[in-house]
Amino acid sequence: MNRKIIGRMLGFLLLLECVFLFPSVVVSALHQEQNALAAILATMVIAAVSGGALCFIFRRADRHFYAREGFLITALGWVVLSAVGALPFVFSGEIPHYVDALFEVISGFTTTGASILTEVESMSKGLLFWRSFTHWLGGMGILVFLLAIVPMGKGGYSVHILRAESPGPSVGKLVPKLRQTAAILYGIYVALTVLDVLFLLAGGMPLFDALCTAFGTAGTGGFGVKNDSMAGYSPYLQNVCTVFMALFGVNFSLYFLLLIGQFRQFFRSEELGVYVLIMLSAIAIITVNTMAQYPGFRDAFHHAAFTVSSIMTTTGFSTVDFNLWPQLSRSILVVLMVLGACAGSTGGGIKTARLILLFKSLRSQIRQMLRPRSVNPVQVEGHTIPDETIRGVDTYMSAYLTIVIFSVLILALDGLPMETNLTGVLACLNNIGPGLGMVGPASNYSVFSDLAKVVLMLDMLFGRLEIFPLLILFSPTAWKKAG
Amino acid sequence: MNRKIIGRMLGFLLLLECVFLFPSVVVSALHQEQNALAAILATMVIAAVSGGALCFIFRRADRHFYAREGFLITALGWVVLSAVGALPFVFSGEIPHYVDALFEVISGFTTTGASILTEVESMSKGLLFWRSFTHWLGGMGILVFLLAIVPMGKGGYSVHILRAESPGPSVGKLVPKLRQTAAILYGIYVALTVLDVLFLLAGGMPLFDALCTAFGTAGTGGFGVKNDSMAGYSPYLQNVCTVFMALFGVNFSLYFLLLIGQFRQFFRSEELGVYVLIMLSAIAIITVNTMAQYPGFRDAFHHAAFTVSSIMTTTGFSTVDFNLWPQLSRSILVVLMVLGACAGSTGGGIKTARLILLFKSLRSQIRQMLRPRSVNPVQVEGHTIPDETIRGVDTYMSAYLTIVIFSVLILALDGLPMETNLTGVLACLNNIGPGLGMVGPASNYSVFSDLAKVVLMLDMLFGRLEIFPLLILFSPTAWKKAG
Repeated sequence: MNRKIIGRMLGFLLLLECVFLFPSVVVSALHQEQNALAAILATMVIAAVSGGALCFIFRRADRHFYAREGFLITALGWVVLSAVGALPFVFSGEIPHYVDALFEVISGFTTTGASILTEVESMSKGLLFWRSFTHWLGGMGILVFLLAIVPMGKGGYSVHILRAESPGPSVGKLVPKLRQTAAILYGIYVALTVLDVLFLLAGGMPLFDALCTAFGTAGTGGFGVKNDSMAGYSPYLQNVCTVFMALFGVNFSLYFLLLIGQFRQFFRSEELGVYVLIMLSAIAIITVNTMAQYPGFRDAFHHAAFTVSSIMTTTGFSTVDFNLWPQLSRSILVVLMVLGACAGSTGGGIKTARLILLFKSLRSQIRQMLRPRSVNPVQVEGHTIPDETIRGVDTYMSAYLTIVIFSVLILALDGLPMETNLTGVLACLNNIGPGLGMVGPASNYSVFSDLAKVVLMLDMLFGRLEIFPLLILFSPTAWKKAG
Repeated sequence: MNRKIIGRMLGFLLLLECVFLFPSVVVSALHQEQNALAAILATMVIAAVSGGALCFIFRRADRHFYAREGFLITALGWVVLSAVGALPFVFSGEIPHYVDALFEVISGFTTTGASILTEVESMSKGLLFWRSFTHWLGGMGILVFLLAIVPMGKGGYSVHILRAESPGPSVGKLVPKLRQTAAILYGIYVALTVLDVLFLLAGGMPLFDALCTAFGTAGTGGFGVKNDSMAGYSPYLQNVCTVFMALFGVNFSLYFLLLIGQFRQFFRSEELGVYVLIMLSAIAIITVNTMAQYPGFRDAFHHAAFTVSSIMTTTGFSTVDFNLWPQLSRSILVVLMVLGACAGSTGGGIKTARLILLFKSLRSQIRQMLRPRSVNPVQVEGHTIPDETIRGVDTYMSAYLTIVIFSVLILALDGLPMETNLTGVLACLNNIGPGLGMVGPASNYSVFSDLAKVVLMLDMLFGRLEIFPLLILFSPTAWKKAG
């Protein structure tokens, strides 16, 4: 194994984090928050020194690396970024307990949006900005960003990082060069974010709120800057969020198709069709189911649309306390939590693409059982899906279930109700944020013990990195020298 | 498709059911229950006439059939047997509502043990006996019984029925002839049941109770003849149940190995090892976790052992209201509900054998990811498992999850708590009986609406037939004439 390149890449990442902290410095300075400013600057120094040292020590690293190193860099990179990113909260005393600060930052980077804070409005603007900015950074993938800006020499090695960090069962290159693919994805991401900010500003939202909300929307994160999430904003602003959350849940390569004028291919996308269909069905059922709780159809529809868009894209903003909805609506939300958004979007969850593959594979197996000598390939959009991809999805599901089971068991040690434990795990593993019960949208994760918080942090990382890169950290094979 | 053989086999089954109803007639007669006696006799006439008619109409049926017919006979057979088996309860007026009677009988045949009765002690002995006897019949499989006694001509067609009705990912023949295999399995089943009855009688249990309890234990069903399930019996009797429940959860082909003296192969069984390991770990954790609720270690251990044995083998007897246990113990029980017993036993659930395959497949996939060019076959007990078997297990899991999700959503219409809906579905789909919350061991399934009951009945059948035979009933391909 090439340990040096791992060290070198981690060094790069820390330097990058130092740069990423800079906008928060500006915000803090503008708001004259001396405490927060000092905390952020101190963290920048730590990131710069340790990053610089790592880059220097491993400056002669062989640039040769394989899948194993790609997975390890991704997993370790996210852990290191979070460990350092939590420091400003501790230094400033705004979240004095390190485990809590780490929970908050991992929740940020993984675009989960689960919070241990009982209220956010008293926090300094600089740190609130950093908290929301981590969503935006984590949304598209920090290593993908690195790929987009840093020339990494020849060789196909960076595909391993893109594969490890990108959401979805299979990663296609949009253009032959990987670096260009990454740049295009980031371009679309930035453009959509800017558009979101403009729409929010047009509705009279203050610039600071608009930026933070757009970061939370783009990354499908869900950290808000108000204690009541989005409930206090005007219906127009809420609708802007509904639409943009849904947009950021779409596979970004579809936007690329639109950009290059391939409209027919765009509309042929099975994943988009299923995604829209599930979303509309859920909105329709919940609207009818919750109508009695609201003055009329319009209100029920408005909140149903916002909540479905927020939960299915795994964002986690809320306009109402959906924990108080009837059981059917609550159960639908739990299912949406698990399903998640499209592959190749910033959203979490199992992803619509995997759902389609699971169903098609099930259908092909039933046909096979009925006519053992027939041939039943799984096809999506006219292409036959290789057995390896399907087996990968199946394995993903097994790993997913295993993680849910073990997490719920450890959380049960705290003695909280089963619904809280189960939806808490699902909300973290799928990078959503709020669950139901004691972790509903009107509550937060401060009820859990430190052990439970650590488990939930791991779940968030498992969810964001789609399980395997992180799972590999625990595999002895990954650390063996030979091979 | 060969529709005639399906009709003929259904006819045979109805005749068989007429015979199976006879012991209940004897019990009713001995207890001088005229009402129940008349109801059972009327049902016997209906079964005999309709069965005889079917056999006569399709007397010229071609004996040629394939997988499709095997699945259909199994699925339809279970539905028809239940539809007729429910009649005595309705005729006697002891369960006047047909949906409730059907729920009770499907729960019996599928060895679930979920009941809609708020109390059982006022029921006639004859019908209580029939209720428990359905567990015993359903445990090993009614069609397997048919195979064991009826010579079915040449040709390998009956393997399709054995495969469709037997629990577990793969069915091995113990001896070259299928009929002999079925006979050996039934022989072991009968012998163990007799042994159980003798041990119960030795503890002073009345004969009627001992027979019904042994039926419920052997089939891993769980219908009791007392309102408090097993709580009122002596610790000795409870311990007999603990041991026999665990024994009936073991793969029966392992007993065959013991019978023919292959001790080494018996102890090499990975499934047995994992089954025992999980059981002991669960007992240990629950004992510690519940100690505060009992006078001492011995009591806590006694109830933990009984409950773990009851839930993991999917029997469902209870000595205590485990719904009142701490959250950790309750969560462990939910996990055990899903895991279930060994393949090739009378127990339900996902089965230990599948669990082993899922974990080994996961490990092999991780190794493959780390070293894309290596070869990582999945091996159990030294044999390489074919990819088809693994894909079958994966597909099973997808279908399982889909059924859970849809069932929970439909149950949510009733507005009961999520824990009740989820554990109710799991308890039915895994053929256990009691769940948690409002369907805990001190409660019953009468809280649900008729729609929810129908869904739960389907879940019980899905669970007992391991999903596919029943799922195929809904597949258009199965009903097409050609092929």
